[in-house]
Amino acid sequence: MPDKAKVLLDPHFRKMTEIFSAADLERLHATADVVWGRDEPMPAEDARRELSEATAVVCSEWRYGPLPDETPHLRAVISVSGAFPNALDYQACRARGIRVLSAAPAFGRQVAEMALGLALASCREIAAGDAAMRAGDERWLHAGNATTFMLYDQPVGFIGYGALARSLQPLLAPFGVRIRAYDPWLADGFLRRQGVEPVSLTELLEASRFVFVLAAPSSENRALLSRDLLERVRPDAVVVLVSRAHVVDFDALTELVLAGRFRAAIDVFPDEPLAPDHPIRRARGAVLSAHRAGSVREGMWDIGEMVVDDLEAIAAGLPPRRLLAAEPELVGRVVSGQGTKR
Amino acid sequence: MPDKAKVLLDPHFRKMTEIFSAADLERLHATADVVWGRDEPMPAEDARRELSEATAVVCSEWRYGPLPDETPHLRAVISVSGAFPNALDYQACRARGIRVLSAAPAFGRQVAEMALGLALASCREIAAGDAAMRAGDERWLHAGNATTFMLYDQPVGFIGYGALARSLQPLLAPFGVRIRAYDPWLADGFLRRQGVEPVSLTELLEASRFVFVLAAPSSENRALLSRDLLERVRPDAVVVLVSRAHVVDFDALTELVLAGRFRAAIDVFPDEPLAPDHPIRRARGAVLSAHRAGSVREGMWDIGEMVVDDLEAIAAGLPPRRLLAAEPELVGRVVSGQGTKR
Amino acid sequence: MPDKAKVLLDPHFRKMTEIFSAADLERLHATADVVWGRDEPMPAEDARRELSEATAVVCSEWRYGPLPDETPHLRAVISVSGAFPNALDYQACRARGIRVLSAAPAFGRQVAEMALGLALASCREIAAGDAAMRAGDERWLHAGNATTFMLYDQPVGFIGYGALARSLQPLLAPFGVRIRAYDPWLADGFLRRQGVEPVSLTELLEASRFVFVLAAPSSENRALLSRDLLERVRPDAVVVLVSRAHVVDFDALTELVLAGRFRAAIDVFPDEPLAPDHPIRRARGAVLSAHRAGSVREGMWDIGEMVVDDLEAIAAGLPPRRLLAAEPELVGRVVSGQGTKR
Amino acid sequence: MPDKAKVLLDPHFRKMTEIFSAADLERLHATADVVWGRDEPMPAEDARRELSEATAVVCSEWRYGPLPDETPHLRAVISVSGAFPNALDYQACRARGIRVLSAAPAFGRQVAEMALGLALASCREIAAGDAAMRAGDERWLHAGNATTFMLYDQPVGFIGYGALARSLQPLLAPFGVRIRAYDPWLADGFLRRQGVEPVSLTELLEASRFVFVLAAPSSENRALLSRDLLERVRPDAVVVLVSRAHVVDFDALTELVLAGRFRAAIDVFPDEPLAPDHPIRRARGAVLSAHRAGSVREGMWDIGEMVVDDLEAIAAGLPPRRLLAAEPELVGRVVSGQGTKR
Repeated sequence: MPDKAKVLLDPHFRKMTEIFSAADLERLHATADVVWGRDEPMPAEDARRELSEATAVVCSEWRYGPLPDETPHLRAVISVSGAFPNALDYQACRARGIRVLSAAPAFGRQVAEMALGLALASCREIAAGDAAMRAGDERWLHAGNATTFMLYDQPVGFIGYGALARSLQPLLAPFGVRIRAYDPWLADGFLRRQGVEPVSLTELLEASRFVFVLAAPSSENRALLSRDLLERVRPDAVVVLVSRAHVVDFDALTELVLAGRFRAAIDVFPDEPLAPDHPIRRARGAVLSAHRAGSVREGMWDIGEMVVDDLEAIAAGLPPRRLLAAEPELVGRVVSGQGTKR
Repeated sequence: MPDKAKVLLDPHFRKMTEIFSAADLERLHATADVVWGRDEPMPAEDARRELSEATAVVCSEWRYGPLPDETPHLRAVISVSGAFPNALDYQACRARGIRVLSAAPAFGRQVAEMALGLALASCREIAAGDAAMRAGDERWLHAGNATTFMLYDQPVGFIGYGALARSLQPLLAPFGVRIRAYDPWLADGFLRRQGVEPVSLTELLEASRFVFVLAAPSSENRALLSRDLLERVRPDAVVVLVSRAHVVDFDALTELVLAGRFRAAIDVFPDEPLAPDHPIRRARGAVLSAHRAGSVREGMWDIGEMVVDDLEAIAAGLPPRRLLAAEPELVGRVVSGQGTKR
Repeated sequence: MPDKAKVLLDPHFRKMTEIFSAADLERLHATADVVWGRDEPMPAEDARRELSEATAVVCSEWRYGPLPDETPHLRAVISVSGAFPNALDYQACRARGIRVLSAAPAFGRQVAEMALGLALASCREIAAGDAAMRAGDERWLHAGNATTFMLYDQPVGFIGYGALARSLQPLLAPFGVRIRAYDPWLADGFLRRQGVEPVSLTELLEASRFVFVLAAPSSENRALLSRDLLERVRPDAVVVLVSRAHVVDFDALTELVLAGRFRAAIDVFPDEPLAPDHPIRRARGAVLSAHRAGSVREGMWDIGEMVVDDLEAIAAGLPPRRLLAAEPELVGRVVSGQGTKR
Repeated sequence: MPDKAKVLLDPHFRKMTEIFSAADLERLHATADVVWGRDEPMPAEDARRELSEATAVVCSEWRYGPLPDETPHLRAVISVSGAFPNALDYQACRARGIRVLSAAPAFGRQVAEMALGLALASCREIAAGDAAMRAGDERWLHAGNATTFMLYDQPVGFIGYGALARSLQPLLAPFGVRIRAYDPWLADGFLRRQGVEPVSLTELLEASRFVFVLAAPSSENRALLSRDLLERVRPDAVVVLVSRAHVVDFDALTELVLAGRFRAAIDVFPDEPLAPDHPIRRARGAVLSAHRAGSVREGMWDIGEMVVDDLEAIAAGLPPRRLLAAEPELVGRVVSGQGTKR
């Protein structure tokens, strides 16, 4: 490794100041020689040329062609998005000891907070209640609580037990809820040790009053929540969708919520921006949010903090511990794209 | 004490089924002979006649005139509201060993949950975001988060550290917040031991990004949050008002929120129902709720559970432990009335 | 109340510096005019004379005869021991609005810590293992663990759910144990809400691998753990006795432990000091401690801190919240005496 | 992968029933075809022959020579000890996508429990107190607590922040301690996010009243706690040594504890069994244990549970999540050997 690690920093589509606090940027420069480090995309040829000297690449997508034959110092490719780069040869990376890391964990706290906020907004009718106050047709006290319910002590289901679930779980703990989880990528024993009960998807949907959809999109879970399965949801339940619309039959979800079959709180949609006349916009049983769970300004600095922490570790010859490492079993099964948040 | 305790049960203005689950009602009948036990108010003369045999009175207000000279079995007067009865001779009760209890603790969980939900709805702009989705003028992703912020790691202030605060504190714990508290009825040492930092009201307002107003109304705290003090609130803060409007200069609060000085989430108002043309209804920086934090249907059964638990204790010759006992130092300082929720 | 509260401070048999840190003593003098405040017992006649002006009496026992007819300012009698004073007219106190308070809660943390330490010393054979190392007959690794077991995930029983139990419960929480509790002075509903399962004593003994005896001695629980009941203890269990030997048939306990029926960890004995030839001293299945759970030097300052916190509250016209208030239902049922620690 | 995973199971020096509960063994057979599965060591030639068909090898050391050229199904080499195999070509494993896993995490809970038990036995003088009761020279109550202290609220130091530390941290949480940590293999940012304060070794030793030595032995940390550093330990501190004597200048430790400079609780020694005349055996300020922290019978089944959980994951094409994966940066720096427990 050279005297000082050389880090190729090409965060586009993110902006430098969006992901790095001043303090983290200072730490970064103390740890490594930064190449590029601008908001505009780095020309691919320039990047390729620098790869032979780089210890790490920080990018939002791999736009630099095949790995050069010689990357003697390269130890990590770090994505500042929540997804792993698509156009990267993971096999070659593994053979050369290059870790591929994503900033997915940086979204855990902010998405979990929003998931809880959406769940409470739904069961306690906070958004609808605010709208009623503004329209002047609110109902007071008990009359205003005719159809509300509490989160305390309720059965909860997690669809997907990744970074989002792990961040949400402690927020739910003081409410005394029992959590069932469905995640086909995790062994039952692991789930149990985390304090959740592994169950089938059907059991989860039939048992839970709060269903949190937290699964990252994969090649295996498109429309996992099919119409048939959505029809198993309890009539007194709320479905909180914060990972990706990919995992839900969104037309079925829309119809069922419009029909009053159950409630939903939705942050992600099949097409964004959502069509102005999409019927879900009129659903009284829904709380809607324009994909805002994972992009809070202050929260984005968690990305930079994790990146710099792990670059410090790599520069010191240590394993990175804060970002998420790609695992051979799962790479290729995850579907990348804007907004992946697991 | 007679063979079986006799309980005079006159819950009006609450309804029997509103506060007692079937299971709790069964426990109640197993423990005590119930007198009256209907939704309509018990005629005061009938009640007075039964007092001489009663072990406990369960009511929402004391409508039975002066205590009879002889109440040999009477051990408790229990209010099913969140307030203590007004028209009761507390001195006489104390001298005769009659505890006066209120159901205030039954409101802790539901109000705390709503306080958290309102706080998140404000900082993450959940209500405004939902309204935008319905109006079709929403902004997506980062653009939609231009002015949002997170609860994690923020400085929090509790104005009042009673039952509401004690229920809210564990819900905030996983967010890693530091809590300052102001409560002139509690010694600093007690507050510190609860894990909050006792501070002056001014320091609390200047330091906190989330200000939770949780104080029960008292003869001493009318408009405690005066215009002068409200002007100390941080410009990036949200004031969450869930106990009683009594403790705030509501006109000043309205003006400051309308002027964009800080945000507010408000569940209680000086006059309820609020006037249709009250300017707070138009405040963009506010989340509004029609006094709905403390009357969730499922939550009301906590009242019955606590009442029966404590009647069981009393029938067994034990101290009641779940309801809140009136304390001589504070009775007379609390201002009663509909909706007291501390 | 006079300008400054007058506190009659007569802590004997405790010593001033034993219970008050310098900082707490300073707070005390800032709050009240202190009368006496020496280690020697205050002459009873002097004390009686001062009572008519005193706001509070801080003592270890009531040695001052009947309450004078006029005690216009007296608000509290505070015991610096873990027990309530015996020779006091509680009825008169209640009628005059004088609270009787004990320092029992000050013992919660130190006794709980010792209870956990004793439990671990027993199941992991820490004391026996240390003795073996010194005798040179230790067994290594697995051989040394032939009969040890872990606390994690085990069924635990609490006999008595007072201040000790409430301090012990959080220390056990990270071990993932399920706690059953027996306390005839508490209603089932209260126990359940504390996160413990109310059960009969028999069920508790038959189900628990760790039995913690935490009950304060009362007129009702002498030898509560009779020979018959002790014979229900699981053969793989450890009985941790830290409240008072009063509640156990100590002869039976001794015989059963000597016979290897179960293990015990014992901090309190029927006669202290224990007879030099008492057979329990030879029991291999026991961990023994000379009544040291509740008198750690640093822990004793908790007494002073609580006393001053509550004197500050009383001086401010507020209810005391840190010490334990005598309750009419239970006074007279508690058996006082040196070492009561509930 | 073949229809059913083939697992080469050769646990010697552990025994089958020592590490597998009946239930876990049943799960194992449901998941995989087991080859060998006996307590005796598998002949190396037989093992080599089976490697070409095996999906995983479960062993305590790699005794099978160089990796065969063809191991098309091999996905994991799993050690049932707390260490990674020595005689294994990690580079080749990585290139072929073979994970190397150790059972180190299975020791976390039992060692953490013992570390806490030893710490309490030292500060509360539980072992010494038991010995005094048996010798008949015990001192009662305050006299017996002349030199004891409590764990609550004390400054704590962790030397090493691996699996042991992560298991110990939640056990200490309810004591309200502040934890400083020293671990040169972890970046400061990671440590901070875990709730501990990264500090230098000197600062840790000078600040902590409880010093827990939890570091796995490495080629870099032999006698890390040198005489010079040990002399920085606070005179009122206790040093709890549970990972490996390797990391301490044991002669210096012995001399300092014998001289009464500080206390120690020691589970691991440079030579085991310890020489009968080793002076540490006479140290009054020590609690001694014969390497018994990590071999509790019930705790050993955690190994089997983790192994089977991860074999289930591997058989399902998923990443293993319960055992510890070897990391290229650290392999070769860890010093293996019996009893490594990080």
